[in-house]
Amino acid sequence: MRGFSESEFEARCARAQSRMADAGLSALLLTTEPEVRYFTGYLTRFWESPTRPWFLILPISGKPIAVIPSIGAALMGQTWIDDIRTWTAPDLRDDGVSLLADTLCEVAPEGARIGVPDGHETLLRMPLADFQRVRDGIGQRKICGDGGILRALRMVKSDAEIAKIETACAIAGRAFARVPEIAAEGKPLEQIYRRFQMLCLEEGGDWVSYLAGGAEQGGYGDVISPATDAPLTRGDVLMLDTGVVWDGYFSDYDRNWAVGSVSEDVLSAFGKLIDASDAAFELAKPGVTAAELFHVMNDVVAAGTGGTDAGRLGHGLGMSLTEWPSLIPTDHTVLETGMVLTLEPGISVGNKILVHEENIAITETGARFLSPRIGRELPVI
Amino acid sequence: MRGFSESEFEARCARAQSRMADAGLSALLLTTEPEVRYFTGYLTRFWESPTRPWFLILPISGKPIAVIPSIGAALMGQTWIDDIRTWTAPDLRDDGVSLLADTLCEVAPEGARIGVPDGHETLLRMPLADFQRVRDGIGQRKICGDGGILRALRMVKSDAEIAKIETACAIAGRAFARVPEIAAEGKPLEQIYRRFQMLCLEEGGDWVSYLAGGAEQGGYGDVISPATDAPLTRGDVLMLDTGVVWDGYFSDYDRNWAVGSVSEDVLSAFGKLIDASDAAFELAKPGVTAAELFHVMNDVVAAGTGGTDAGRLGHGLGMSLTEWPSLIPTDHTVLETGMVLTLEPGISVGNKILVHEENIAITETGARFLSPRIGRELPVI
Repeated sequence: MRGFSESEFEARCARAQSRMADAGLSALLLTTEPEVRYFTGYLTRFWESPTRPWFLILPISGKPIAVIPSIGAALMGQTWIDDIRTWTAPDLRDDGVSLLADTLCEVAPEGARIGVPDGHETLLRMPLADFQRVRDGIGQRKICGDGGILRALRMVKSDAEIAKIETACAIAGRAFARVPEIAAEGKPLEQIYRRFQMLCLEEGGDWVSYLAGGAEQGGYGDVISPATDAPLTRGDVLMLDTGVVWDGYFSDYDRNWAVGSVSEDVLSAFGKLIDASDAAFELAKPGVTAAELFHVMNDVVAAGTGGTDAGRLGHGLGMSLTEWPSLIPTDHTVLETGMVLTLEPGISVGNKILVHEENIAITETGARFLSPRIGRELPVI
Repeated sequence: MRGFSESEFEARCARAQSRMADAGLSALLLTTEPEVRYFTGYLTRFWESPTRPWFLILPISGKPIAVIPSIGAALMGQTWIDDIRTWTAPDLRDDGVSLLADTLCEVAPEGARIGVPDGHETLLRMPLADFQRVRDGIGQRKICGDGGILRALRMVKSDAEIAKIETACAIAGRAFARVPEIAAEGKPLEQIYRRFQMLCLEEGGDWVSYLAGGAEQGGYGDVISPATDAPLTRGDVLMLDTGVVWDGYFSDYDRNWAVGSVSEDVLSAFGKLIDASDAAFELAKPGVTAAELFHVMNDVVAAGTGGTDAGRLGHGLGMSLTEWPSLIPTDHTVLETGMVLTLEPGISVGNKILVHEENIAITETGARFLSPRIGRELPVI
């Protein structure tokens, strides 16, 4: 089922408002695509256009208020939101600034604190100069950080959210299973990228927001490069890492293939990656920390030929390709039922790297795979 | 040809540095994908991940300095940039903040002004709290607006940039020409969206960053909605508006089709849209303003049944789906050779709208179409 029931949005608002009360915040001011969508269900690819700012205000009680360009009014009107205030954007003299300031003054009393997400993995999606104008236009009200409320809420997914991520993962899985149709010795990598995105769409993805990978002898140099026109060569390891979107939720996992035959070192390193993600999967359950998942994977990888420059061995996943927490030694986030994570161990093989990635959901008793679990054997194309 | 010659990047830096000298700026601090790519050529879809901040510093002389997560070092090392400073991100305690502050202190003397884009259509892609930490960590140096330098530079494209946009437009044009293969009475709109994205890829697009549209009786309600599963019905007008990316540059135009037959009013309104964009095309040349292009289109549309809620009748196009200027009455940007624009008139028909869009480049003597020019007759599927 696409979308969410109204009760899901009501519950999200209630959870946020409870935390806002604890934090002494009279309102939240939200500006980014996932933040606005989280409380409204407003889903459009129009955010690709950087021209117009969009604002959502969540007051301490009641429904959110949308302060948006008029071009979005019709679509926002289809959500559960009632209070939609618009201006004709772009307006070079006042691009929503006074409408936003007036609305903030209406919902928050003089002297109140208004929270904006300002911590790790956040940004403010509006021009800095206009943000200053808003601050100057709201009297004695003070804009401050949201104290991590958005992070805390979005990190724990509802069953309905997990079902969407699982759908996206299943679509990616069907596309990965068909890679032998499009990849073979001699085929240029950029053609494989194109054809793989077509497979993701054909298998039911709404759009393909992310595809990276690599294909070099015995591994790859990094995992974020766009494709080159270099043809697949015997001895390459091909990796494709995709973020397929279904109803606004992402998959994020990769698969590797040997082109013809690869060395024993590569096969052994790949087996260690599977051992690493399996070890994390076995450990994952409520009460375990993100750092502990890092260590259980790193122990396996470090017992091999060492890790990579990726900086972490997995992360949260949901409305964005990557979300909190990070699987790093210093992230002591305690896992809860409903979190969705990627397990993404990497390993060095000579001057190349290999990376493997799975998607899991934390359940009451452990974890379950959202991506189709694979074995230690590197498939050959 | 993919990428750019080193001389193109040198010229971009020199133009920026000349304007920085005029504005009394010792450095620019850049944080977004197009800003970083403009001066480096660093092209990756990894920006889809909101986790890590990326920084580029352009000093008043010399090459840019990249201050980036270690995961990006290998790919950034393939660009013309020499000075690449990395940290292991994410780092929850110091996510590049002190490395960035130290580098700013190195390139800008005490008391200097450092510019960040802060005007219309810009944002700062880093956590607000970290931005404050950077400000606190650079002594008497002051971060201020860039005075529109990035806007002024990016708005005028080189021949090499225009060639990339033209390639993206040609790819979209071949995909649009094949829409009769995928769209017909009875086909669900969401299947048409999927298949159209596949056509864009098959015809050579690297990825499809944007697709919106609509299909309702005699028009559509808005132009930014995702697809529904409603089947095409006789009397619908189908519109598809796509941003196809080739080598980091966008197309952005749409096409309309009548499903079976539509009313005379719809046919007449569509003809007016073509008249409007043709009138703007005929007027467009260096010295004419963005506002004048608005008025020449609006005069045609207003002589019909009135406009839409879009807020503008076209915009710049390039590394982003939408860029400066805006074709609105208050944008008096003077057109220059090398600007790339969309002409995007919209018209009301009953309670529906129709929108038509073309992409043009401003030449020394006028303008030329980058999208394949079409006639006044609404094609039928």
